[in-house]
Amino acid sequence: MNLILIFDSDFIETTKIVQLKGRRHKHIKKVLKASPGDTLKIGLLNDKTGTGKVLRIDETSVDLEITLKHSPPNPLPVKLILALPRPKVIKRVLQSVTAMGVKDIMLINAWRVEKSFWQSPVLTPGTLRTQLIYGLEQAKDTILPDIQIYKGFKPFVEDRVPDIIKGTIPIVAHPVSEEPCPRNLRQETTLAIGPEGGFIPYEIDKFVRCGFKPVHLGNRILKVETAIPAILGRLF
Amino acid sequence: MNLILIFDSDFIETTKIVQLKGRRHKHIKKVLKASPGDTLKIGLLNDKTGTGKVLRIDETSVDLEITLKHSPPNPLPVKLILALPRPKVIKRVLQSVTAMGVKDIMLINAWRVEKSFWQSPVLTPGTLRTQLIYGLEQAKDTILPDIQIYKGFKPFVEDRVPDIIKGTIPIVAHPVSEEPCPRNLRQETTLAIGPEGGFIPYEIDKFVRCGFKPVHLGNRILKVETAIPAILGRLF
Repeated sequence: MNLILIFDSDFIETTKIVQLKGRRHKHIKKVLKASPGDTLKIGLLNDKTGTGKVLRIDETSVDLEITLKHSPPNPLPVKLILALPRPKVIKRVLQSVTAMGVKDIMLINAWRVEKSFWQSPVLTPGTLRTQLIYGLEQAKDTILPDIQIYKGFKPFVEDRVPDIIKGTIPIVAHPVSEEPCPRNLRQETTLAIGPEGGFIPYEIDKFVRCGFKPVHLGNRILKVETAIPAILGRLF
Repeated sequence: MNLILIFDSDFIETTKIVQLKGRRHKHIKKVLKASPGDTLKIGLLNDKTGTGKVLRIDETSVDLEITLKHSPPNPLPVKLILALPRPKVIKRVLQSVTAMGVKDIMLINAWRVEKSFWQSPVLTPGTLRTQLIYGLEQAKDTILPDIQIYKGFKPFVEDRVPDIIKGTIPIVAHPVSEEPCPRNLRQETTLAIGPEGGFIPYEIDKFVRCGFKPVHLGNRILKVETAIPAILGRLF
């Protein structure tokens, strides 16, 4: 937690003072060991960052006086289409792409996504949102990504993708493609990343028909949680 | 396991046939569901990759006839100096950098490395080696990285670093530096990455005196397991 993320609902009495309990109070008390007068790094969800001065802290809550003045870090100019990863890694992946600045995340189905993954309790809106919050706190960001779920591959690609990729460079990560992944793109990009084992040829073909270019990262097969930061680090 | 990694000690009778039990047998039997006559992707540790034809498989072991003919994927031209990460992530980090092709890994101490991390059972040679093996299997590689541990920061930087960086571009990741991380380096590089919270000014200064350039990845603070693939993806 490199930044304490606060919400409109945290404000008490005035527009200047918040009262925090639970996880954030515990972090301020136990990890930061803050006392009255200390100043903490704060961000208001979907708003600016700034500081919070500790007015009072006890065993259950902390009151902070908030001053907001800085813009959050720039987002990455990318829309991420991601075949649903296995439940064990999805939390980490969402935290990591949020920390890197991705603001549009679409979780989609694909042939090699195991059906059982869709039953995971991670996919409840509350749990998904929590991962995004953790990613924002990590990167001192405040702008909550938008996350959408599409359980049908074909209707997603046929009905939604044409609008999604408008004005962007659409690329799909495909280890056996001819073209290396581009570097240092300065344009809006749509990046599609497949499941373990990759998209099947039919799926790649559907993306290609929409205008996507298949690109590779070399002949090493990487896990999705390694491949995504590697591609984003290279693209932007 | 995108490649079954075999060792000299797996060969039986001839130089052509290996017998595998345990984890690799289980993977071949349960995940790949292989039968006699099937051909699997194989690599011999520190040697070539090729195929293994299933000669016989039962509930406890599998015999493969090995043909080796391809070179493993190219390594990354980088030496990685890494402040010891917390035990929870060190396995994943080692697997991920090995999968990306790092062949020189140095785990070092730093001011913000918690002392308790050095007590982790992960740091036994066997457990470390297992993570490297998993990384090789993931990336279809065979060349085992070298991993060294240095528990003293000052003697490491003063006595070892001058030799390590000879003929390389030495850079140290430092979020508050002025210089952005370079892209697409085609030269041998030494990359130093700090602990959570970063290297302290004294440590950065020691690296700078050795010739390291501090570089940043933007104003987002990333977890080490995200930062490393992002930097490697950008550098190479």
